[in-house]
Amino acid sequence: MTDEAPTLTRTLLAAPFHEDSRTALLVLGEKGLHHRWRRENHLNITDDIRALNPAGRLPILLEDQGGETVVICETRSLLPYVEDITPNAPLHPPTPLGRAEMWRLINWFEVSFAQQVGQTLVYEKIDKALGKMGPPDAQAMRLGLYELRGHLEYLGWLLDRRHWLVGDHMTLADLVGAAHLSLVDYLGDVPWSQAPLVKEWYARLKQRPCFRPLLDVQVPGLPPVPEYYDLDF
Amino acid sequence: MTDEAPTLTRTLLAAPFHEDSRTALLVLGEKGLHHRWRRENHLNITDDIRALNPAGRLPILLEDQGGETVVICETRSLLPYVEDITPNAPLHPPTPLGRAEMWRLINWFEVSFAQQVGQTLVYEKIDKALGKMGPPDAQAMRLGLYELRGHLEYLGWLLDRRHWLVGDHMTLADLVGAAHLSLVDYLGDVPWSQAPLVKEWYARLKQRPCFRPLLDVQVPGLPPVPEYYDLDF
Repeated sequence: MTDEAPTLTRTLLAAPFHEDSRTALLVLGEKGLHHRWRRENHLNITDDIRALNPAGRLPILLEDQGGETVVICETRSLLPYVEDITPNAPLHPPTPLGRAEMWRLINWFEVSFAQQVGQTLVYEKIDKALGKMGPPDAQAMRLGLYELRGHLEYLGWLLDRRHWLVGDHMTLADLVGAAHLSLVDYLGDVPWSQAPLVKEWYARLKQRPCFRPLLDVQVPGLPPVPEYYDLDF
Repeated sequence: MTDEAPTLTRTLLAAPFHEDSRTALLVLGEKGLHHRWRRENHLNITDDIRALNPAGRLPILLEDQGGETVVICETRSLLPYVEDITPNAPLHPPTPLGRAEMWRLINWFEVSFAQQVGQTLVYEKIDKALGKMGPPDAQAMRLGLYELRGHLEYLGWLLDRRHWLVGDHMTLADLVGAAHLSLVDYLGDVPWSQAPLVKEWYARLKQRPCFRPLLDVQVPGLPPVPEYYDLDF
């Protein structure tokens, strides 16, 4: 298993308001993997990005390994890779069943939550503001808020049984979940008072140093709610 | 790391014409993991399925482990789990970079190929026939055929450089790719003569015993083209 070489330089191509990009920022930060963040726009995928990832998706991690550039594309590949190269700072559970549960929850955020909350609420407010695509659609936002409540209920049910999403220890699933929730938190749309266990779990994550880069970025013309900066909200 | 217990019984809930379900059938077969196949309909997700997987998606693997039923949901979780419990029959490459490339390609099939070819060509012909949802849309099918050619070109480019998709050895990426291509092959829509390297690679996979369950199922009223049964087409 290869490990951090002292001369290795690492660049992360990630978009500030794109959930999977935010996952990569959190995971690299939490792992202590030093990197330069090259800010990209997830709504405008350039030929430059497509040359690195034929699927045309972010995030993309570039590593200079002795003059050769290694390209790691998207969370599906980046998450196992980062875990592979940092065996001394594990964010995987120690058992096969624990890891299976972690991947199930990661998929639940990246597919279910992203489609039902991200593609409605976050898309209507943040993506449309970023891309100057006109006003948000009220019905889509209402649907997003409704779906958000259902997803918070399920997270609350899990966190009534477990300290972190998969069990006693923080795993990649917690960071993926925090990345997805962070954009709804930016908007001030999370009904925290109705989800106290989720709030307590999210506050624990938001207080970690890896969260700082996410708190430093703003959508032009759409500042976050003041509570976004409150680590103990 | 736990391994096959002699009394373990395993049931796979999988839909015959659903790409991710076919991936699970191929991987369990290739790994020699004995299981019962409970056939499901991916177009009609029952409450029974939702109780096992809140995301309401197939495939789902059930394992009876000493009286307790363990539930493993969807390929995102099932693929790492199956690899974890069969360390002596690896379908992962041996290096972090090899594994990163494998996951990149798996994601390319499960997202890009599935959206651009599966959701057009396969959906219009197979899903609509299965669900009695009316005739296929000609324009969507033309778009699917166009996208298929682009995807075959990229696969051909890879297979000009590598014997299997990731390198010298078969990995999970080859089985995932074969699962996705198999439904287009069922329809007779793959322009094999224009993709000789992809044809040779796919023929190698189709000849493996793990493929047999896929060849044994038929869409009612829509039999496969005769070449579907030809392992050396």
